[in-house]
Amino acid sequence: MKTLGTLGEREAIRIIDRIVKSDAEVGIGDDCAAIDMGDRFLLVTTDMMAPKTHIPKGMGPYDIGWSIVAVNLSDIAAMGGRPLAVVTAIGMTRGHPIEYLEQIVDGMNDCARHFDTSIVGGDTKEHEILTLCGTAIGEVARDRILLRKGARPGDLVAISGELGKAGAGYYSLKRKLSLEEAETALKRPRPRLKEAASLADAGFVTSCMDISDGLSSSIFELSRSSGLTYEIDYSRISKAKEVELAFHDLERQKSLVLNFGDDYELLFTVKREAETDLANLASEIGCPLTVIGKVTSGEQNILIDSGKREKLENLGYEHFRSRQS
Amino acid sequence: MKTLGTLGEREAIRIIDRIVKSDAEVGIGDDCAAIDMGDRFLLVTTDMMAPKTHIPKGMGPYDIGWSIVAVNLSDIAAMGGRPLAVVTAIGMTRGHPIEYLEQIVDGMNDCARHFDTSIVGGDTKEHEILTLCGTAIGEVARDRILLRKGARPGDLVAISGELGKAGAGYYSLKRKLSLEEAETALKRPRPRLKEAASLADAGFVTSCMDISDGLSSSIFELSRSSGLTYEIDYSRISKAKEVELAFHDLERQKSLVLNFGDDYELLFTVKREAETDLANLASEIGCPLTVIGKVTSGEQNILIDSGKREKLENLGYEHFRSRQS
Repeated sequence: MKTLGTLGEREAIRIIDRIVKSDAEVGIGDDCAAIDMGDRFLLVTTDMMAPKTHIPKGMGPYDIGWSIVAVNLSDIAAMGGRPLAVVTAIGMTRGHPIEYLEQIVDGMNDCARHFDTSIVGGDTKEHEILTLCGTAIGEVARDRILLRKGARPGDLVAISGELGKAGAGYYSLKRKLSLEEAETALKRPRPRLKEAASLADAGFVTSCMDISDGLSSSIFELSRSSGLTYEIDYSRISKAKEVELAFHDLERQKSLVLNFGDDYELLFTVKREAETDLANLASEIGCPLTVIGKVTSGEQNILIDSGKREKLENLGYEHFRSRQS
Repeated sequence: MKTLGTLGEREAIRIIDRIVKSDAEVGIGDDCAAIDMGDRFLLVTTDMMAPKTHIPKGMGPYDIGWSIVAVNLSDIAAMGGRPLAVVTAIGMTRGHPIEYLEQIVDGMNDCARHFDTSIVGGDTKEHEILTLCGTAIGEVARDRILLRKGARPGDLVAISGELGKAGAGYYSLKRKLSLEEAETALKRPRPRLKEAASLADAGFVTSCMDISDGLSSSIFELSRSSGLTYEIDYSRISKAKEVELAFHDLERQKSLVLNFGDDYELLFTVKREAETDLANLASEIGCPLTVIGKVTSGEQNILIDSGKREKLENLGYEHFRSRQS
């Protein structure tokens, strides 16, 4: 009997995509669904989280509340959108203290307010296991929307910020390394809403997604959406300083940077002639926007490391399967 | 230590309402949040369901999928809205067979399509317990929106359809009574979208909500929203024919009709002079719209039964507490 454990999350999503008849202009398979509203799109995304399975130990209720809002806002960012509202559903046991609920809601509210939106409603249900579900609604002008598809061979591949920080925070919590900034990055993800809006306005971005499940996995998702391949230079990736504090071993560092996820940075492609414009935009908005490779029409996704070309492995986090790193 | 079990769901929602700073024109406490979009409101509602706790035995995966979409669409109906899109998050174990997921998604898709909308996206996550979360987005013209508040003393209280059908279906499943129509009503709730839109257009409706947790509980919710009291005549309530097939005992019948819930009918108030208009609308749209009482400014909500006036008890279903009937 085929179960979800044998298929994995991405295959499950493809099954759903085959069954569901969506009216949306952009449906299942991108960061948000996009619904035609004339000169703009309404963006909708939803994310479920069961802290016991999905959340590292060391995260408190406030962090959990913050995160469920942040990960949904990150999907709005990935489309170049502006958030309009968030709703959240909370499933808790009868035994949960009221203070626990209050702290979750505090975290949700603070995250939403920080990113210029608000929690407008929700649902509270009794559940055997703490479960949160958030849904973010946003909007984007029709001619500004950023999709996972759209890249052309020769386009440059770029990321915002640095990778590996949240992963280093995870190991810091686990092994009590006191890498405080990294731990905060893990506990309080910061969706790149303003940066993504600037990228959408710039006009030279050809595709975009957020890196929730790790760079390698995100590259494979972009590849699936565009039908193209991607060549990434490991040395060009901006790595958080905490990566080498978390691991001395270079292979483990590499795995953290490529496969861990939870950084919620943007992975995007730009027209090949836009490298200077991208650098200018980066200084203008005060956020690193780094070219890490290019779009190709090859056989497979490639990682260049110390001059060696190797096949990029898809080792990002996938639900129904085990964490790799 | 105060826990959710001692407070109950409605008190939990009030705690959330105190913490959250919402930008929405209509926020927490109505069936949907309503976001200002100029001449119309965007409506958003979300609902979580853990079939093991919330769903009666006898409901299959298709029914579960149908229900999570239907209950959210019912909230859109309660505001007089038209659905634009639905997103759903599914938490399942690794051991769930693929066919189980497929049937859930089939049910979701069929319900959405049946009510002229579609599933535009979602999330699939590994979870220890099957958990579904749906979010519906809708819209309504600014001058057509139906809220829980708005009733005036002297307004008439009315319901759509019949009550007690889903409850009879629940006991039919439990005791193998083969009340098929009632079982279907429980398994495949039908949101009153078209009927609510007609009521919103009619202009004489002063407040509205859907009866998800039972009539008594819904009356108390309306009462809290309007600051008024409600007087209901038990003899005037249209009861499903299956109610007396499920129970001979009159008190148990009464409890089913007043407290069970899951019928997803509309509970609304109309201007006192609109009784004839309401009857005309009912024949026009082919749905019973029955006056069952009136809005008062008394001390408490009243139930009139066989000529006797008694205090209406709030015995509807509330999460974190036990089902009463």
